[in-house]
Amino acid sequence: MSQPALSSTPRTELRRGRARGVSDRNALYEVLDAGMICHLGVVVDGTPRVIPTAYGRIGDVLYVHGSTGARSLRDAPAQDVCVTVTHLDGIVLGRSVFHHSVNYRCAMIYGTPRLVTDPDEVLAGLRAIIERLAPGQWDAARRPTRKELAATAVVAIPLDEASVKIRQGPPVDEEDDYSLDVWAGVVPVRQVLGEPVPDPLLPPGIPVPRHVAALATTGDLR
Amino acid sequence: MSQPALSSTPRTELRRGRARGVSDRNALYEVLDAGMICHLGVVVDGTPRVIPTAYGRIGDVLYVHGSTGARSLRDAPAQDVCVTVTHLDGIVLGRSVFHHSVNYRCAMIYGTPRLVTDPDEVLAGLRAIIERLAPGQWDAARRPTRKELAATAVVAIPLDEASVKIRQGPPVDEEDDYSLDVWAGVVPVRQVLGEPVPDPLLPPGIPVPRHVAALATTGDLR
Repeated sequence: MSQPALSSTPRTELRRGRARGVSDRNALYEVLDAGMICHLGVVVDGTPRVIPTAYGRIGDVLYVHGSTGARSLRDAPAQDVCVTVTHLDGIVLGRSVFHHSVNYRCAMIYGTPRLVTDPDEVLAGLRAIIERLAPGQWDAARRPTRKELAATAVVAIPLDEASVKIRQGPPVDEEDDYSLDVWAGVVPVRQVLGEPVPDPLLPPGIPVPRHVAALATTGDLR
Repeated sequence: MSQPALSSTPRTELRRGRARGVSDRNALYEVLDAGMICHLGVVVDGTPRVIPTAYGRIGDVLYVHGSTGARSLRDAPAQDVCVTVTHLDGIVLGRSVFHHSVNYRCAMIYGTPRLVTDPDEVLAGLRAIIERLAPGQWDAARRPTRKELAATAVVAIPLDEASVKIRQGPPVDEEDDYSLDVWAGVVPVRQVLGEPVPDPLLPPGIPVPRHVAALATTGDLR
């Protein structure tokens, strides 16, 4: 736990639900390392655009990638972006409509993106993104050609300014409502990975690699 | 299928991956009605902010809610927002790093939010949000008091300007790569709901209502 605490800037200071804020850098890593897609917020022509995209993390840098032709990435380095990773963990059913909620873990990162130009960092960033989706795939799949790399933009966002919010547990109801004849509790939500489905064009005799088979989870809820 | 087609404006015209675009209004409804949280993008002090939040839909209007004290909602009516709902359906493992992808369904909505002031519409909007999380809960839980309503801001966003992108199926690899000795295919991803967990403070003798028990899914992947 020797990591520096998360920054508190006007953007990341939690105004609402302050009790749910977590100022531990390891909590940030945990939320990021448990996800596969983020929602990247950019401003284009004065209006916000929220784009789901894959991401990877190396230390205190988040990487996203896209086509060099994609406008949102091409414009992004000119201005700050917001990256949000959210895990929905449960539906919280209170005794009153007002106290319904969801259990979740959420990380929000603000930063000025940097277009990665160093070839080694481009490869490292791409590797982090692929390995986030499927650990082991970088070594299994064919590496990018020079032409493929030229068509790929990799953007780095520093994890300097971030906030983490976590809500877990049962509903918090009004004192008077606890005696109501209304069921209250949590319906857990979980993302599960299923058995790998081979590409119909896969030649016979290529088995599911161990690192891919390992992705499938049991479907049991924790 | 008598719905009007989705609009094509400069913001919703799909520049990248055009083949994945869907211009059917029913597809928009399906993506929205399959989700529980959206990512709401607003611009605050010139920078984007991406906030996960619950939502509901009534016809061609999307509703989100929040505290009347939350800055993102308070400021939202002054400017356009972007609402994105994403379902991650699979990890697409190609034969090359370059052709890795994810299967997903994604709706992006642009619009000028309207702060709902009509009391009936406030209730209808809240009901839509609650019922999206847990159908049947509106009639089961205590309705909001006047004080609770005063603390709740409901915002309506018209579904006039939206795009839907869907990617499903196996990887699409380079012709030369199909002969490689590399496994390729899809690892399905699904969100599952588990058995309801009663609030520890629930008095004995209050059974899980049928509409709550019905939320739990089997955990089987489709």
